[in-house]
Amino acid sequence: MRHRFEPTRFYNTFGPYEPVLRIADGDTIATTTLDARGYDRAGQQVAERGNPLTGPFCVEGAQPGDALQVQILRVWPNRDEGWTSRAIAAHVVDPPYVPNLPEREPLARWEVDCQAGTGTLVEPETALGRLTLPLAPMLGCLGVAPTRKQAISSATSAEHGGNMDYRGLAPGASVAFPVFEEGALLFVGDGHAVQGDGEIIGTGIEISMDVELSVHVVKGADVRWPRGETATHLFTMGNARPLDQALQHATTEMLRWLESDYRLDPVASSILLGQCVEYEIGNVFDPAYTVVCKVAKALLRKG
Amino acid sequence: MRHRFEPTRFYNTFGPYEPVLRIADGDTIATTTLDARGYDRAGQQVAERGNPLTGPFCVEGAQPGDALQVQILRVWPNRDEGWTSRAIAAHVVDPPYVPNLPEREPLARWEVDCQAGTGTLVEPETALGRLTLPLAPMLGCLGVAPTRKQAISSATSAEHGGNMDYRGLAPGASVAFPVFEEGALLFVGDGHAVQGDGEIIGTGIEISMDVELSVHVVKGADVRWPRGETATHLFTMGNARPLDQALQHATTEMLRWLESDYRLDPVASSILLGQCVEYEIGNVFDPAYTVVCKVAKALLRKG
Amino acid sequence: MRHRFEPTRFYNTFGPYEPVLRIADGDTIATTTLDARGYDRAGQQVAERGNPLTGPFCVEGAQPGDALQVQILRVWPNRDEGWTSRAIAAHVVDPPYVPNLPEREPLARWEVDCQAGTGTLVEPETALGRLTLPLAPMLGCLGVAPTRKQAISSATSAEHGGNMDYRGLAPGASVAFPVFEEGALLFVGDGHAVQGDGEIIGTGIEISMDVELSVHVVKGADVRWPRGETATHLFTMGNARPLDQALQHATTEMLRWLESDYRLDPVASSILLGQCVEYEIGNVFDPAYTVVCKVAKALLRKG
Amino acid sequence: MRHRFEPTRFYNTFGPYEPVLRIADGDTIATTTLDARGYDRAGQQVAERGNPLTGPFCVEGAQPGDALQVQILRVWPNRDEGWTSRAIAAHVVDPPYVPNLPEREPLARWEVDCQAGTGTLVEPETALGRLTLPLAPMLGCLGVAPTRKQAISSATSAEHGGNMDYRGLAPGASVAFPVFEEGALLFVGDGHAVQGDGEIIGTGIEISMDVELSVHVVKGADVRWPRGETATHLFTMGNARPLDQALQHATTEMLRWLESDYRLDPVASSILLGQCVEYEIGNVFDPAYTVVCKVAKALLRKG
Repeated sequence: MRHRFEPTRFYNTFGPYEPVLRIADGDTIATTTLDARGYDRAGQQVAERGNPLTGPFCVEGAQPGDALQVQILRVWPNRDEGWTSRAIAAHVVDPPYVPNLPEREPLARWEVDCQAGTGTLVEPETALGRLTLPLAPMLGCLGVAPTRKQAISSATSAEHGGNMDYRGLAPGASVAFPVFEEGALLFVGDGHAVQGDGEIIGTGIEISMDVELSVHVVKGADVRWPRGETATHLFTMGNARPLDQALQHATTEMLRWLESDYRLDPVASSILLGQCVEYEIGNVFDPAYTVVCKVAKALLRKG
Repeated sequence: MRHRFEPTRFYNTFGPYEPVLRIADGDTIATTTLDARGYDRAGQQVAERGNPLTGPFCVEGAQPGDALQVQILRVWPNRDEGWTSRAIAAHVVDPPYVPNLPEREPLARWEVDCQAGTGTLVEPETALGRLTLPLAPMLGCLGVAPTRKQAISSATSAEHGGNMDYRGLAPGASVAFPVFEEGALLFVGDGHAVQGDGEIIGTGIEISMDVELSVHVVKGADVRWPRGETATHLFTMGNARPLDQALQHATTEMLRWLESDYRLDPVASSILLGQCVEYEIGNVFDPAYTVVCKVAKALLRKG
Repeated sequence: MRHRFEPTRFYNTFGPYEPVLRIADGDTIATTTLDARGYDRAGQQVAERGNPLTGPFCVEGAQPGDALQVQILRVWPNRDEGWTSRAIAAHVVDPPYVPNLPEREPLARWEVDCQAGTGTLVEPETALGRLTLPLAPMLGCLGVAPTRKQAISSATSAEHGGNMDYRGLAPGASVAFPVFEEGALLFVGDGHAVQGDGEIIGTGIEISMDVELSVHVVKGADVRWPRGETATHLFTMGNARPLDQALQHATTEMLRWLESDYRLDPVASSILLGQCVEYEIGNVFDPAYTVVCKVAKALLRKG
Repeated sequence: MRHRFEPTRFYNTFGPYEPVLRIADGDTIATTTLDARGYDRAGQQVAERGNPLTGPFCVEGAQPGDALQVQILRVWPNRDEGWTSRAIAAHVVDPPYVPNLPEREPLARWEVDCQAGTGTLVEPETALGRLTLPLAPMLGCLGVAPTRKQAISSATSAEHGGNMDYRGLAPGASVAFPVFEEGALLFVGDGHAVQGDGEIIGTGIEISMDVELSVHVVKGADVRWPRGETATHLFTMGNARPLDQALQHATTEMLRWLESDYRLDPVASSILLGQCVEYEIGNVFDPAYTVVCKVAKALLRKG
């Protein structure tokens, strides 16, 4: 079944809240997200800044110990203006270079042409002129209610997903999250029309989005960190500081996955990953950083 | 001028040693490298294990304060057998997972078909069977004599380059290194026929190589970390632990480059990198990790 | 006013919950805490494991933007048996050493003599024999409700305090926390009869405690991280991973404090701290590590 | 035998250089060190800045695989003026705080009274006035020639010791270093009259020193990181970034030591260290940070 859901209440934390909608395993939700400062498609601020989230959606049958597989069907801007910061984060450069960095505000403004699929820098005026980039819309925030009844800020991420700011969370990807609460309690928000690796200025092109997701419950899945697939790759996500630890989480989750589903023992998976693993840096800006570990599906045979 | 040089003496450190050959700015060297354990094309051990290096080559006219631009023209295996470790490094997985890891040895053996351009796993026997991969040969070690008369192990890396184990150091790339000694003193070694991101098992497919490099002195260049170009991208390399610091070095070097050569002030480069930067993890195995910061040349206009 | 409060409901998160008691600025609370697995003085499990907390206590007049100063008057075991883990955490040793580590359980048991003020190892039998240590009771968990309506696990820590596992949080110390919620909402728990630096086995001698605290509201205090005093020192606490970042937080908070209250500009505080700063490692076990930055009060004059 | 040695040649790297003096196992050397910028007791610059080292001393009988135990008998300033930086290092504070930091120079000047045993701040003029501190002289640099014929800058440290900037390397301490070269090749330098934990301004009170050391060869010692004793404690030193890794090295070396010399298996040493370990931060300024792991000798019985 396909649900259309127009949100009116937004959370700035991933937590065990009363669901805004109950849906069945296999259903699809078409909804919208606000931008990171709480502005909607009409340019009205309708929620508090700091990644206000649409949801939570309760998925019937999802129990702690299961995984919730979320297929990203559509993410597309629904207005014609986005914004970005104008300063690389201080913790992403060598400490002595910090005094050279500009202020984060006033924000840079981007004109977004949803038909043409482009974003164009409007201000400030810089040597970039009217830089025009192809849209590559993605979800900064995606995840479920965390473990232990926590309510965790939508500024950060952990095992439950959250604000991972990985540009691979885009149409064509599906991601499984470990379920900690009855019904999983899915949240989505913080869409970016374009974003570089690492989200090093602390934003992508921030904009409100039309979003469509379908959900599948995987019973008894042993999923510890978000893991997913695209047409070409398996991927696992680790969220932590420093990057080294995020990479450890993602790599370990991949080893566990290769062992359980592809019958690769640690020798086989070591040899395979040693020659073929790919890493991406999701974000290196948020309180928890995100590293993604990828393996091409062409190299694998389901066991 | 094109020099053919057959090495007979090998160093396991990047240091201010007596050059094995003096060449002119603009010259090309065709030479060979041993594998990481000191075995040559004939399968004879002729040097001590631990990345024995070919060189140093003294480039006339290179002075401290200049940069040495090294164009990688050719890297191709010159024998038909390579080897890899069979275990992911303990520091790349979650600490509690470490007891699940296999031993690093006995080594895995790979048959390398230099004509067909493939590497095939021969042993151990695993669920991977005779996994065959296309060759993508690269240089694990490339760099110059370090600052302050140091002699730094070819197991690690720093501002002078070294053992960066980045799979982008392959034909088609050129890299500039800061010069610390008269003549720069270029070293090369540790070729890998194939390697995944991060070199997480501590090896690629280790093999002896035919290597061809050309060198250019860039006078008075303000290069602090290795930086280079491919057909499509500019890239900068940072070497340090943790990955966070390696990424800071690479990002800062890119900002400095964009400002000096492309006239992008920090606001412009922040906006550009925020939407368009790409990161790669060179290695996450060696004492210093390597992160690579990339920007597509199509986005840039030389200032 | 002095309140006696016997808790019956326990939280495993620091969050914006309904207060169990309202007290006035300047009041004292005498209460009890469970051990980390939820066992009380009678050895009965009355709450879920994972640092169940006593509280929250609402302090009248405390508003967001204020600080809540908590004086630790008394922390003393109220039963005669405690327990510890028996294994150093895997992330505290070199990764290749991990396979040498023992299992964390069965727990080690300690006999606690509250009169004599000693703890004695009872089992397992090891070369330590019946190792007897003087008690040095402290609070593993102390803090207030976090920012942004979050509910954060009592396994970790942040700006609001939490599970910092610093052995300096003991009688004679007072600590100020930033207030994020009306009434501050103070929580306390996870007492240790003895603990080494870093809590590297993941526990101290875990035991239920009698605790006495007094509270003072500091209006308009610019406190960003927990900061406190003992008879001899000022101290600030930073909570993050890696230790480097925890140390940055603690050092920066100290600089801000020295500037606002002791009129030391950055040159003066640099010179002073450069020669005289002391650091302690609170914990290097929990999801966020804790570093403490200390300055002897004898070196300072209130500005 | 007691040697008096007046140095005339200084190295800025720890490397396998020609010894300046050959001494026997058990001998004592009385010598002098320059300050970190190469100035001697007369205030003359006689070597290049950057921790010029006295040595190397060749200790007869020391072979790779042995340890060299160095007893620090005396470290005392031999002139009446020292200097410090005036700025906390940028990497020791929160990145956004960096623009508040002062310049590192002009240097602060300290009057040192070698009779009275005090150091007094002379300039700049700050709210500290003429701050007077008791001298606590120590050695910033102490170590031997590194592994693999490396020559490693005296700005950093590793298994061979080096620039560890730990204020515990003072009279009364003895430290054992792993031997990598015939004769060990001992170097010493970079004395500080006073220094805080972490050397967070990048200097202590830098001054030339009179130094007296005695040396003992420990045959076949299995020492991997510098380890030592004071009157009250055993200690081990780990050098790396981030602090987390330095702490892992130090803790692992302590576990190995407790097992080999004190017959504590991992369960016993876990229980002991869990309750009783102490950590100190040597330096958090140099390219490699230093963490020290300590255990009170009163808790131990030689096995």
